[in-house]
Amino acid sequence: MNSKQPKAVVLVSGGLDSATVLAIARDEGYACHALSFDYGQRHSAELAAARRVVTMLGAVEHRIMSIDIGSFGGSALTDEAIAVPEAADQGRGGQSGVTQNIPLTYVPARNTVFLSLALAWAEVLDARDIFIGVNAVDYSGYPDCRPEFIAAFENMARLATKAGVEGRGVHIHTPLIDLGKGDIIRRGEKLGVDYAQTVSCYAADEAGQACGRCDSCALRAAGFRAAGIIDPTRYREK
Amino acid sequence: MNSKQPKAVVLVSGGLDSATVLAIARDEGYACHALSFDYGQRHSAELAAARRVVTMLGAVEHRIMSIDIGSFGGSALTDEAIAVPEAADQGRGGQSGVTQNIPLTYVPARNTVFLSLALAWAEVLDARDIFIGVNAVDYSGYPDCRPEFIAAFENMARLATKAGVEGRGVHIHTPLIDLGKGDIIRRGEKLGVDYAQTVSCYAADEAGQACGRCDSCALRAAGFRAAGIIDPTRYREK
Repeated sequence: MNSKQPKAVVLVSGGLDSATVLAIARDEGYACHALSFDYGQRHSAELAAARRVVTMLGAVEHRIMSIDIGSFGGSALTDEAIAVPEAADQGRGGQSGVTQNIPLTYVPARNTVFLSLALAWAEVLDARDIFIGVNAVDYSGYPDCRPEFIAAFENMARLATKAGVEGRGVHIHTPLIDLGKGDIIRRGEKLGVDYAQTVSCYAADEAGQACGRCDSCALRAAGFRAAGIIDPTRYREK
Repeated sequence: MNSKQPKAVVLVSGGLDSATVLAIARDEGYACHALSFDYGQRHSAELAAARRVVTMLGAVEHRIMSIDIGSFGGSALTDEAIAVPEAADQGRGGQSGVTQNIPLTYVPARNTVFLSLALAWAEVLDARDIFIGVNAVDYSGYPDCRPEFIAAFENMARLATKAGVEGRGVHIHTPLIDLGKGDIIRRGEKLGVDYAQTVSCYAADEAGQACGRCDSCALRAAGFRAAGIIDPTRYREK
């Protein structure tokens, strides 16, 4: 790290998208402060993957913050009473705009909560840049992955913080927002991301092996096909 | 509780303002879901006060959510390395608008984080109302207590959530935003709030006794004088 590098807070989940975002932020010259959340997600293999991703790509520091958002319930990703849907159960992929068909795997206000905590850390660090791997193409059912949400968050953040009041508002970088999964993977490959270290599966086991059946696995596999790159995902025996 | 009552999430800190807000939300007919945060604040007497306030005024339920925001540092309220300023050390009181003189007791992005978590819970509860005791009159140094911040948060929330996308955005109620401390106290007195149960002091001891010297104690004492009501605060021996 070079003391003249601008600082950025980078949200790292352990998935394919955020690993690519960390690689992009590093490539753009930011001193990256990686932030992950333990929010009661079922797939805690994700956090192990987040650690591997940060180790692999490098960062000034990596914090994993525990938040109780899962205790509110309401999502198949955190609520044991709701089954994780398989890919055929829900419409997704390729549509633009928000459909009425919000995925069951939606976590209430998740990106709002994550960006708010990133904003708090950015303010303490005096960082003016936050990176997040939202994508409006493949996950069109999540309202908080759309450009209009990101713009509204930036506006709110300018009014919320000491830095914003002093004319140094934060910029939320969303380098993947318009990319298809295949394009994301091609971009990351060029930057040296080893996707075998990432976990996308909603039902990964403790070793980080994927189920190969859930919505997220289907989308990821299609991405490698589209990129023309051999899928390095470790699937468990079926 | 009556099943036809609309639900509201009410942020309750244990202080004078949020106790008044809970009383107002109850009086307006909401079924109140009280939310408090354990965020590493030094004055944990606050959380004991929050429990007393909710018990006294009533709510459907009360959740105390732990979040690590204090670990980011940057505030005298959570960072042991920064001394709590006494009242004479900082300008405050009565000014409108934001001054350059942001109080040292500012917690980075605090209301953004708290409202985001309230939003997550509201979405799960299918509640369309959130109450928060921000006040732009006496605490003019906090950027996230201003009406323009609240409006920007509401706008962002409409774009962030499933409910917002479906045309059921949340309303952030700020019934105290334009009131002086004396008016707040008069309002609460009429609604039966026992302010002896609340703690405002930035340096309260474990029994909830106030120091009588910090900024928050000075503001509170002036409020009781302005309201013409005997101050029931329990001060510790000096």
